Amino acid sequence: MEKLEALFDHIASRVNVNLKPLGIDVRPLLQNSIPRERHLLYYAFYALTQDHPLSFKFLNSNLAGSYFLGKTMVDRSVLYKSDIRGDELKRKGDVVEFNGVKTRLFYDEVIRIINSFLVKTLVHNNSKNAEMPEVFRILNTVAMHFSNIHGTTCEGVYLGPFATADFSVMHNCVVGDFSYVQAGDLANKIIEPGRVWIRARGLYEFNYVFPEGVVEKYVKLNEHGQLSGKFIEYVDETKEDFVPVYSTLAPEPLENIPESTYVSPYAVIKGQCEIGENCLIVQRAHVENSVVGKGSNAQENCFIKNSVYEGNDVTAHGGKVIHAHIGKNVFVGFNSFVHGTKDAAITIGRDSIVMPHTIIDAEEPIEVPENSAIWGYVTRQADLANQCVDLEQFSKTTDLTLGNATFKGDGDAFVKAFRHRIEHIREENGAYYNGTEKTRGHAQKTQDACFNILQPFQSGPGMGMYPTMTIGE
Amino acid sequence: MEKLEALFDHIASRVNVNLKPLGIDVRPLLQNSIPRERHLLYYAFYALTQDHPLSFKFLNSNLAGSYFLGKTMVDRSVLYKSDIRGDELKRKGDVVEFNGVKTRLFYDEVIRIINSFLVKTLVHNNSKNAEMPEVFRILNTVAMHFSNIHGTTCEGVYLGPFATADFSVMHNCVVGDFSYVQAGDLANKIIEPGRVWIRARGLYEFNYVFPEGVVEKYVKLNEHGQLSGKFIEYVDETKEDFVPVYSTLAPEPLENIPESTYVSPYAVIKGQCEIGENCLIVQRAHVENSVVGKGSNAQENCFIKNSVYEGNDVTAHGGKVIHAHIGKNVFVGFNSFVHGTKDAAITIGRDSIVMPHTIIDAEEPIEVPENSAIWGYVTRQADLANQCVDLEQFSKTTDLTLGNATFKGDGDAFVKAFRHRIEHIREENGAYYNGTEKTRGHAQKTQDACFNILQPFQSGPGMGMYPTMTIGE
Repeated sequence: MEKLEALFDHIASRVNVNLKPLGIDVRPLLQNSIPRERHLLYYAFYALTQDHPLSFKFLNSNLAGSYFLGKTMVDRSVLYKSDIRGDELKRKGDVVEFNGVKTRLFYDEVIRIINSFLVKTLVHNNSKNAEMPEVFRILNTVAMHFSNIHGTTCEGVYLGPFATADFSVMHNCVVGDFSYVQAGDLANKIIEPGRVWIRARGLYEFNYVFPEGVVEKYVKLNEHGQLSGKFIEYVDETKEDFVPVYSTLAPEPLENIPESTYVSPYAVIKGQCEIGENCLIVQRAHVENSVVGKGSNAQENCFIKNSVYEGNDVTAHGGKVIHAHIGKNVFVGFNSFVHGTKDAAITIGRDSIVMPHTIIDAEEPIEVPENSAIWGYVTRQADLANQCVDLEQFSKTTDLTLGNATFKGDGDAFVKAFRHRIEHIREENGAYYNGTEKTRGHAQKTQDACFNILQPFQSGPGMGMYPTMTIGE
Repeated sequence: MEKLEALFDHIASRVNVNLKPLGIDVRPLLQNSIPRERHLLYYAFYALTQDHPLSFKFLNSNLAGSYFLGKTMVDRSVLYKSDIRGDELKRKGDVVEFNGVKTRLFYDEVIRIINSFLVKTLVHNNSKNAEMPEVFRILNTVAMHFSNIHGTTCEGVYLGPFATADFSVMHNCVVGDFSYVQAGDLANKIIEPGRVWIRARGLYEFNYVFPEGVVEKYVKLNEHGQLSGKFIEYVDETKEDFVPVYSTLAPEPLENIPESTYVSPYAVIKGQCEIGENCLIVQRAHVENSVVGKGSNAQENCFIKNSVYEGNDVTAHGGKVIHAHIGKNVFVGFNSFVHGTKDAAITIGRDSIVMPHTIIDAEEPIEVPENSAIWGYVTRQADLANQCVDLEQFSKTTDLTLGNATFKGDGDAFVKAFRHRIEHIREENGAYYNGTEKTRGHAQKTQDACFNILQPFQSGPGMGMYPTMTIGE
């Protein structure tokens, strides 16, 4: 494993170039978080479809568990159980607009990952970097367990476990455990654990910080890179369910799945489930004893258990929904934990927005009214008073302080931005498919995908490394 | 499937450039022999090991079912359930000798397959082409079901089903159904069906032709490319056994396999089997209720059923051994059919050579004495009179006519060449492994192989085609 060992060393030294000045040394985390042998156990795979131009280049890397689609280049990196999706890469000639400035893509956009360590990490493009829209760049970056890199350029970034970097451009940044940031251009920032920060410069800014002691109950990383807390406990409970899924090449097609719906062969559908039309259940999503209504989706690392989705509901990456009744058109944000029990079920009214990184860990039945925004840490109905606002009311707000949350700016623009984005997700995922080419989304375009499987060398000095590969034109 | 269809058209037109002058039109065979949809069903795979330098380049092809190892380039070709092995490719600087002329390899040797259609075909290198030892070339070639291309340059060649082109250089040739040729440099030859032709120019020549009507009982290809006969019936009986083997990614390791032995995860071991040390059971070999003694092997498309191998026995590609007792150091040649039954078992004495393409289809118990060469078509003990010779006696022969067989030349050289080759096969396969690096062979070197899986596009105009790929430096 000499080469893999040298690769870890290389990544640590490069990432520390960016992060040591911010007081972060990633070396001990890289050294210990995943036992080296585990990098031999998993295979990488990529999807072939006629709708996604194919171009992969893999150099000097371990790709274990990755899922590729579209155009990706990986050099001197370790990707562990990652999902690197490229299904929203822009094409040559596309025009992008950012802060009122328009520019046209000179080449097809490509995801380029260099000198990085991404562990159980999703990367989803739809980049908001108009400076260089041809390249979605992840450089000198360490992303810990189940953090999300989403539409975000990362150059010298550390993401703690279950952190999300969303729609940003980040250079030399630290995003603390379970922190969510969607704040445009960021440099040399340290975001503390459990902060939810949504900012559109000159337009609005939302801030929330979890009460002291809460984040640690759910997400705790020790100095050796070992993760504990309720989130990982919940995720680990279902680990076994994925073993058969990842060890067969020709999975039995599921019964009663409508033609317009896509269930990835790398998803788990368990117990009594009912899945409607135009749904998208992607790889590493886990659905158990639930109803997933028409036009709904479950994205990477989502868990839906003992729940009902009425329809057109979106569960963003890492969302977990247990013992919940979800009304129509609801959005459950990144890494949210909507955790009811049999005796303390959760109801989310239609058209509501569960903000990213919300924890609803019900100790009693909880009912979120229709058309609400909900955020933060909720365990009882009474908590909603400080953490839930009617969206119509929010639209009229310009200044709000409520519990640990503050909002300043154009409430209407904030709500519209959310609504617009949720709508975009539904469209992209094919929730409104009606047989026409225009309405086809991921659910339909991925139908005919087949998967190619890549493994690392199993012995010798190159053990754990993948061969150099160029796939596609 | 426009692109796949165009590829078939392209291959037919190129092969016909070489073969039309010989009266062969491959177009109807290509059009009909395999339903197009079947080219979507199978995946190609290649092995990663530390002992085989990796370099693949795949362009404009369908690779379904191939197995790659070493360095291979495939361009504008259809490989269907093929085994393209490169485990005996020569390296840069190696010296080869052919007819007394020595030359040194300028580059690593590579297998290069262009404009060819290889259906259920094995390709094994160890090339005897000293003119261009850096390239093992298969150009404008059509090889039908279970034919073997072995150490043979093929430029404009048609191989009928179960035909074998062994250790030759062939340009514009036709090798008829179940014909075996090992005859050095050949051009513009048509080898009739069922001929066994072994020639070392200036040294010896062996010829045998199956009696009229026999080949058709075992191998019959109609004008639409459909195959029938006892061979394919036998092969088809075991088809189902390979389904689970090819649909799992993490096969359960077999029990009671010695460490020095390699059983490919793509082989079938069925019923009660006992496999000794230093054995090699490769992909698409099928072993059932048999004992495979120390140092023995079963090569691609071999079937061993209800049989005992005492040890150091070699079953060359496509050999089938049923209800037989095989003494020590026996060689069963390419595509031989040693078919006993419970009441008509076959015994092959130690040190014997079952020549390539021998059919022993026992109607009564048959015993082949020790140290014999046996060939041709045998159904009863009495048939041995004309088709079996003591090898010591053979060594002293310079001229022999026996039944349908003739031999002219240096009998001693002929026997020694066979013995030398069988010894080489044992060494290469690791039959004599004693823990030292020098004695490691395929059985040991392939131990840590892991497999990467490639599939074709499942929809769109590219349906059935594989993406362009370059793997390795």
